[in-house]
Amino acid sequence: MRIMAEAEQPRSRDEVQQQLKEVQELLGRHRLVEDLVHRQEMPRHDLVEGLVHKQHVAELSERLDALHPADIADLLETLPLDERLFVWELVRAERDGDILLEVSDAVRESLIETMAPEELKAAAETLDADELADLAPDLPEEVMEDVYLSLDLEERAQLRAAMSYAEDAVGALMEFEMVTIREDVSLEVVLRYLRRFEELPDHTDQLFVIDRAEQLRGVLPINSLLINDPECTVSEVMIAEPLTLRPDDKAEDAASAFERYDLVSAPVVGTEGRLMGRVTVADVVDFIREDADAEILSHAGLREGEDIFAPVLDSVKNRWAWLAVNLVTAFVASRVIGVFEGSIEKLVALAALMPIVAGIGGNSGNQTITMIVRAMAMGQLGGDSAIRLLKKETGVALFNGVVWGSLLGVVAWLLYGGWQLGLVMTAATTLNLLLAAAMGVFIPMTMQRLGRDPALGSSVLITACTDSGGFFIFLGLATLFLV
Amino acid sequence: MRIMAEAEQPRSRDEVQQQLKEVQELLGRHRLVEDLVHRQEMPRHDLVEGLVHKQHVAELSERLDALHPADIADLLETLPLDERLFVWELVRAERDGDILLEVSDAVRESLIETMAPEELKAAAETLDADELADLAPDLPEEVMEDVYLSLDLEERAQLRAAMSYAEDAVGALMEFEMVTIREDVSLEVVLRYLRRFEELPDHTDQLFVIDRAEQLRGVLPINSLLINDPECTVSEVMIAEPLTLRPDDKAEDAASAFERYDLVSAPVVGTEGRLMGRVTVADVVDFIREDADAEILSHAGLREGEDIFAPVLDSVKNRWAWLAVNLVTAFVASRVIGVFEGSIEKLVALAALMPIVAGIGGNSGNQTITMIVRAMAMGQLGGDSAIRLLKKETGVALFNGVVWGSLLGVVAWLLYGGWQLGLVMTAATTLNLLLAAAMGVFIPMTMQRLGRDPALGSSVLITACTDSGGFFIFLGLATLFLV
Repeated sequence: MRIMAEAEQPRSRDEVQQQLKEVQELLGRHRLVEDLVHRQEMPRHDLVEGLVHKQHVAELSERLDALHPADIADLLETLPLDERLFVWELVRAERDGDILLEVSDAVRESLIETMAPEELKAAAETLDADELADLAPDLPEEVMEDVYLSLDLEERAQLRAAMSYAEDAVGALMEFEMVTIREDVSLEVVLRYLRRFEELPDHTDQLFVIDRAEQLRGVLPINSLLINDPECTVSEVMIAEPLTLRPDDKAEDAASAFERYDLVSAPVVGTEGRLMGRVTVADVVDFIREDADAEILSHAGLREGEDIFAPVLDSVKNRWAWLAVNLVTAFVASRVIGVFEGSIEKLVALAALMPIVAGIGGNSGNQTITMIVRAMAMGQLGGDSAIRLLKKETGVALFNGVVWGSLLGVVAWLLYGGWQLGLVMTAATTLNLLLAAAMGVFIPMTMQRLGRDPALGSSVLITACTDSGGFFIFLGLATLFLV
Repeated sequence: MRIMAEAEQPRSRDEVQQQLKEVQELLGRHRLVEDLVHRQEMPRHDLVEGLVHKQHVAELSERLDALHPADIADLLETLPLDERLFVWELVRAERDGDILLEVSDAVRESLIETMAPEELKAAAETLDADELADLAPDLPEEVMEDVYLSLDLEERAQLRAAMSYAEDAVGALMEFEMVTIREDVSLEVVLRYLRRFEELPDHTDQLFVIDRAEQLRGVLPINSLLINDPECTVSEVMIAEPLTLRPDDKAEDAASAFERYDLVSAPVVGTEGRLMGRVTVADVVDFIREDADAEILSHAGLREGEDIFAPVLDSVKNRWAWLAVNLVTAFVASRVIGVFEGSIEKLVALAALMPIVAGIGGNSGNQTITMIVRAMAMGQLGGDSAIRLLKKETGVALFNGVVWGSLLGVVAWLLYGGWQLGLVMTAATTLNLLLAAAMGVFIPMTMQRLGRDPALGSSVLITACTDSGGFFIFLGLATLFLV
C-alpha cells in the first residue's frame, strides 16, 4: 500500500505548474554555474562555487521532496538526460519505486540503467506484488531474483500470479490488496473491524464477502454499510451476484464494463469462484489512456511512445519498421507507373494529374476504414452489417466521385485543354473512390475474420491499395482512350 | 440521482453478449415475419400473424427491461434505423432519459427526431440538472423551455450554471449531487446523518465540509470516517487543503489530475471559495475516452463519430471538409509537377520515381509530428526543447536519408541504368526527410505559439509540405543535373 505523506498530497494544476517552474529555475541556475565553471569563465574559487552549488542542491532537494511521485515522474520526462539523472540522484531513495512506476517506459529504462543493483533492490522492495510485476520486465534478472527471495510466501504467489497473465488481460491490472469480510456478521461488527485498520486500501468502495474456502459470496458497498442499520447482517444488505471479472478476461472488456456501469472497483474471481484480487478504476484509467495512446502512435507508425530526448538510434529503431513497409508499397506503386511510362511520355499531363487521383482515394479510404475499425472496437458491427456498410460507403463514394471528380475533370480540361482528359479524370477519381470504399470495408472485415487486430496497419494497407489502384485506373483509362 | 433497479445491475461481458444475442435473434424472427407478410408469401391469417408478432414483442420487451441503460444504448447503436426505432418504442418510457444520455451523438439525434415533444419532456424530467445540460443542445427549444419551467429554483440555477461552461471546461463535467457536512460535529453524528439517506450519490468517496457561507473548509474521506474513533470531530480528521477544481479549469487538466493522483471525486469551487459541485471519475473516464476518440477520428479527417447506418448525405457532410482541404493540397503538388513537365517528357523515369520521394517524406514527417504533438499534450516540452528536438529529428532524418536514400538510389540505378539518376534519388530522399523533420518540429511549435491546437490538421499540413516539397526537390535536382 502506498503511504501518502503530508508533502505528497495531490495539488491543483496551477500549484504543480508553479512548483515545477521553480524546480526548473533552480536547475537552470545550477546549469549556469556548472557551465561557467566548465568554461573556466568563473575563477575556480572552490569555496564559493561549492557553496553556491550546495545551496542550490539543498533547495532543489527540498522542493522535490514536496512533490507527488506522479509530478516528479512528469518532471523527469521533460528533462534532457543529464538533468534528468541529476534530479533522479536527489530524489529520496524510498520514493524511487513509486516514481519508476509512474514514468514512461522509455524514461524508466534510462533511469534504471544508471542504478546500482542494491539501489534497484531497495526501490523494488517498497512496492506491492502487483506493482512489482509491472516493473519486473525492466529490472535486471539478478535484482528480480533477490527481490523474489525477500518476499514472504503469499507475496511470492501473488507476484507469480500477476506475472503469469498477458499484458492485455485483467490479471495484469489486478491488485491483491482489499478488505474481505464474512456474511454472517452484523454491520456493527464490520464497522468495528474497519476501525482496526491504519488505513484502507485506495478505492475501497466495497468490501468483498467471502466464505472459509475464499469463495466470493457477494460484495458490500461502503454506501450500504453507511446507510443501513448497524444491526443488519452483511448477508441481508450485500449484493449477492455482483459483476465479477476473470483474470484471463480481456482488459479491454473490463475497461468497457467500468465505463458502462461507472464502477470504482470490481472483484476478480478464479475458476472455482475463489476471490483472487480486484481491479480499481485507477488501473482502468491508466489502461484506457495507454490504449488510446498506443492507437494514436500506431496510426503514425510509431511502435511505442518515445522519450523525446532519446538518442537518435533509439528513435530510428522505433520508427524503421513502418518506413520500410511504406517504402515497399511506394515501390509497388512506382512500378505500376513504370508500366505506363510510354503513355506518360506521349501525354505528360498524366504525370501531374495522377497524384491527385491517388491522393483523394487514400484520404477517402482512410475515412472509411477509421470509422469501421472504431465501430468494430465498440462492438457495433453485427452479422449482416458488411452488406449494409458496403452499400452505404459505395453511396458516399459515388456521390463524392461525381462531385469532386467532375470538379477535377473541369480543372484538367481548363489546364490542358482536352475534354477527353477531363472525362478520364472524372471517371478515374470516381472509380478510385469506389475502390477505396470497397477496400475500406473489406480490409478490416477480413482482418477480424482472421482473428487479427483490424486497426493494425489498416492505414498502410488502404493507402497501398488506393495508390497503386489509383495510378493503375487513371493511367490505364488514359492509355485506352487518350494515347 | 439514478436509481438502479435489480434488473439494471451491471453484468459481466459474457452475460451481456448473450442477452444482446438473444434480443438480436428475437429481432431477426420479428423481421422475418414482417418480411413474409410484406412479400405476401405468408397467407394473411391476421389472427396467426398477430399472435406470433405479439408473442415476440412481449418477449423482446421483457428482455429489454432486464438490460442496463448502457447496454440498451449499445444495442441501439448496432441496429439499422428501422430496427433501432422499433426497439426504442419498446423501451419503457421512464428509462428514455438515461438511455439518451448513453448513446452516441449521431444515434441520439436519430432517436430524438422520432419522439413527440411530450415524450421528450417526460424523458428529460427524469434527469438531474447536469445530465439535462448534456442533453440540452439536442432537444428542441420548446421542449427545453417546458422542462426549465418544471424545475425548482435550485435546479434552474444548476442547469443555467452547467450550460454556461464551455464543453471542454470542468464546469461541463460537474455534478451537483453530493453530501456536505459541518466541521464541528463528531464522526458519530456524521454516521447517524448518513443513515438517514435512502442512498448516497454514486462515487461518494469523500464528504465535503462546508461552513454557513457554503465555503469549502475541507474534505472528509469516507475511509477516514470508517477507521477513526467516532468521538473525533470532523475538523480533527478532515483534509483541510484538498485538491480543488475551478469550473473554468480545462477538463483535460482535471482528467490529468484524476489520472496522476488516482482520484474518485474532487470538489469544484467558485471564485469566493464557495463549493459549487464535484467531478467524479465516471465523468472523467467518459471524457478521456471521448477525447481519445475525437483525436483518432480527426486524424482521418472525420469531424465526429458517425452512426454507421447514417444516411449517405450525413456521412458526406461529416467528411467533405477534409477531402476538400486535401484536394487543394493535392492540386498544389500537381502544379509543382506541372512546372517540370519538360523534364519528365525527356526522362519519363522521373514520373515513376517521384511518388516514392514524396511518400517516404510524408510518412517520416507524420511520425515526427505525432510524437511532438503527444509530448506537447503531456506538457513535456519546455522552453529550449525546440532546438534540442530539431537536432534530434535532423539526426534521425539524416540517418534514414543515408540508409533508405542509398537503397533507393541503387534501385533506381538498377532499374533505369544511370548512376546520376541514382545519386539524385539519394539526395532528394535525404533532403525531403530533412524537410519533413524541420516542418514536423516547426508546424506544431508554431500552432502552439499561435494558441491553436497543434493536433488539428497537423497531418494534412505536414503531408502537403512533403508532397509539394518532395516533388520540387526531386524534379528540381533532376532538371539541374540530368536533363
